[in-house]
Amino acid sequence: MEMKAIKVNKALDEAIPMQEPIKVHEAMRYSLLAGGKCVRPILCMAACEVVGGDESLAIPAACAVEMIHTMSLIHDNLPCMDNDDLRHGKPTNHKVFGENTAVLAGDALLSLAFEHVATKTRNVTPQRVVQAIGELGLTVGSGGLVEGQIVDLASEGKQVSLTELEYIHHHKTGKLLEAAVVCEAIMGGGNEEDVEKLRSYARCTGLLFQVVDDILDVTKSSDELGKTAGKDLMTDKATYPKLMGLEKARQFAGE
Amino acid sequence: MEMKAIKVNKALDEAIPMQEPIKVHEAMRYSLLAGGKCVRPILCMAACEVVGGDESLAIPAACAVEMIHTMSLIHDNLPCMDNDDLRHGKPTNHKVFGENTAVLAGDALLSLAFEHVATKTRNVTPQRVVQAIGELGLTVGSGGLVEGQIVDLASEGKQVSLTELEYIHHHKTGKLLEAAVVCEAIMGGGNEEDVEKLRSYARCTGLLFQVVDDILDVTKSSDELGKTAGKDLMTDKATYPKLMGLEKARQFAGE
Repeated sequence: MEMKAIKVNKALDEAIPMQEPIKVHEAMRYSLLAGGKCVRPILCMAACEVVGGDESLAIPAACAVEMIHTMSLIHDNLPCMDNDDLRHGKPTNHKVFGENTAVLAGDALLSLAFEHVATKTRNVTPQRVVQAIGELGLTVGSGGLVEGQIVDLASEGKQVSLTELEYIHHHKTGKLLEAAVVCEAIMGGGNEEDVEKLRSYARCTGLLFQVVDDILDVTKSSDELGKTAGKDLMTDKATYPKLMGLEKARQFAGE
Repeated sequence: MEMKAIKVNKALDEAIPMQEPIKVHEAMRYSLLAGGKCVRPILCMAACEVVGGDESLAIPAACAVEMIHTMSLIHDNLPCMDNDDLRHGKPTNHKVFGENTAVLAGDALLSLAFEHVATKTRNVTPQRVVQAIGELGLTVGSGGLVEGQIVDLASEGKQVSLTELEYIHHHKTGKLLEAAVVCEAIMGGGNEEDVEKLRSYARCTGLLFQVVDDILDVTKSSDELGKTAGKDLMTDKATYPKLMGLEKARQFAGE
């Protein structure tokens, strides 16, 4: 399992070599190679193999998913957004490189994600590559990460229902995970039925993933957690533990 | 000629219908449909037709180019970047919708650009679509718009050589124009030789385009120009007129 994460991290390292202008490449690499990248690549590549594809077909799209995920972290952490100082125990991108470089590093990563799939995928029909790019695109824009973040920002300081919370998390976390799995099923040569089965499976997994993350936020200290602990409570953001109570959220995650 | 711009604007309007969450779609549409979109679509679609392709093949990629261009304007205008209040005579995106929505609207437009080419292009082989997406990707990231903006930001308040200025403008303006032309030559069914010829042609055009823009900045008032006039001089940014003197820059543009 861990081997898959290592392979993706190696491919990510090679995808963004240090070059001029140094600062933006350094900023891109700082957040992209910050570690903690296990769940998504492993799920991704498993989806490719489940439909009978070789692991190697899955790596460029797995890299793209990590690039998109990293872009959304960098932008969501900005002072004008969630204003987060720590992530995985390290200062956030804008804290180290400044706000302007952080915005640009995110833009460059987002664009590189699509370019990388288009130019680095081998032994997959162009038709499948185009289809995968379409799926990836859906996860970012106004129906994905961006939509989730807009609704999340609007929810600060307000009473949010469980349905609204699920909506936010589905868009901010679930959709990318879902697209990752779907992309890899496409890359791996899966037929339409397989792809749709895996899409449903990934939808459930994505939700679980977020509940666990929310629980970690209230129960762990900043040191263990690597992001400002309890911050979601402080800024009065909607989380599962806040809405359901910690014990119920734990139970929900257990189920 | 104008008909082409009208067709692209109609396609852009349809690409982003007003829907929930309203605020981000409104922000995307505000800057994308702000008018002034003539040069790029016309050049784009001409490139498609030059190689014998029907105009309809060119429209999705022309839309993508406008989305990428708009994203870069929205992000470059942010307070942490160039801090511009006016663009085409209208308040900039963050002035109207707030910084966080402006960042997200840019992200959504960038992602939609790639998704749009992947999902809306008709009657072009998937191989050509993948190739065009790869070309578009190169214009944004660390070798394109982002690189230009990083170097541009670093140049404020410094003495910049003409070579450095050309480097900035090539990355911030020229590369997208070049990619637009190249993409459309690919979509139109051009062979490798045609595509490379058009690439060289577009490279020259892109440079000229920026010189004219710089001259307009010093000679026109804010009212005529639609952006804070003389702002490049105020912030001591490198421009052609500053480096060459206004008369020489005019002469250079004339050539």
